[in-house]
Amino acid sequence: MIYSEYINRETKGYTDILDITDDIKRIVGRSGIQNGLVTIGVSSSTSAVTTLEFEPGLISDLRKALEIIAPEKGSYAHDEKWHDGNGFSHVRSSLIGTSKTIPISSKSLLLGTWQQVILIDFDNRPRSRKVFVQVFGE
Amino acid sequence: MIYSEYINRETKGYTDILDITDDIKRIVGRSGIQNGLVTIGVSSSTSAVTTLEFEPGLISDLRKALEIIAPEKGSYAHDEKWHDGNGFSHVRSSLIGTSKTIPISSKSLLLGTWQQVILIDFDNRPRSRKVFVQVFGE
Amino acid sequence: MIYSEYINRETKGYTDILDITDDIKRIVGRSGIQNGLVTIGVSSSTSAVTTLEFEPGLISDLRKALEIIAPEKGSYAHDEKWHDGNGFSHVRSSLIGTSKTIPISSKSLLLGTWQQVILIDFDNRPRSRKVFVQVFGE
Repeated sequence: MIYSEYINRETKGYTDILDITDDIKRIVGRSGIQNGLVTIGVSSSTSAVTTLEFEPGLISDLRKALEIIAPEKGSYAHDEKWHDGNGFSHVRSSLIGTSKTIPISSKSLLLGTWQQVILIDFDNRPRSRKVFVQVFGE
Repeated sequence: MIYSEYINRETKGYTDILDITDDIKRIVGRSGIQNGLVTIGVSSSTSAVTTLEFEPGLISDLRKALEIIAPEKGSYAHDEKWHDGNGFSHVRSSLIGTSKTIPISSKSLLLGTWQQVILIDFDNRPRSRKVFVQVFGE
Repeated sequence: MIYSEYINRETKGYTDILDITDDIKRIVGRSGIQNGLVTIGVSSSTSAVTTLEFEPGLISDLRKALEIIAPEKGSYAHDEKWHDGNGFSHVRSSLIGTSKTIPISSKSLLLGTWQQVILIDFDNRPRSRKVFVQVFGE
């Protein structure tokens, strides 16, 4: 059995980090699927889906780590050609990844107590994002 | 068809890297599934699942790379508030990811000759970890 | 329903980045599957699968970011023992990951307008790579 829905979110960009765990739990609930998995994917080259303990300290710590790898004020060949100014956004998305699969067991998402599913928007402006949530199982 | 089992592992923390490939192969064998995929997920915000050639040199090399992005002795906003001292663990987990999906073809896991599935525990103390292994297919 | 095929690609190594989106779309088309997901995996400990806007600027930007984390000319414990000279390749593969799952909705891969699926070969010599593409769904 397959069940899917979209989550719509307005983001601010610049590594905006949003907790989408409750939306995913509701979709898994509506699917009626008891055992299986859920794939969460964002159709974008400047955002990502991963997990994090969603609290302000770690949001700032994760941003700091990403500044080391792909700094916002760095120089990017992408920006020289396209003048988008979002080269850092593309690189960050590629490194973290735009989809995430989480097992479902006895109707529950297999997440740790302090583990939330997050949508990260790395772009350099506000965006409207559609996150596809697909539940597989029986 | 869906078949699932847990792998239980005691870890030492501090980027402890454990080879869980044989456990996964045994679970895939017991599932009876010939073609499909296996999702391996750890319910934790301070560990990760990925692949690596499991040999002491690369274990040390991977730790060194992670020290660049999220150093153990760095300063973390998470630690200022929660005094857990494991801000680096959370950031590393979020960057690498807590789940991994591997195809199964003719009863075999599609892994390279030198490629093992690893559980990484980034926490700053020993932990008991449960890894969920879910086999999908026919 | 499950349908799978291999994509064969010759690579140059040294973070060679190849666009494999059209091959995946053709395989999804041949599968006849309308709703589901596709898992793309490479059986290798020195390559990776992720997404990127495939244009020369970003290819160079992504390489630059990876040089920060695991530089080609860095010193690696793996190389001291095995003298392969590809310690950086293994570390990069482990950080980005060797598989990727993308949802399929109404016969279409859920990718952004500027988002391509890429195979990255980090090895330090040309290789022949087999990418396994497995389509699941109904």
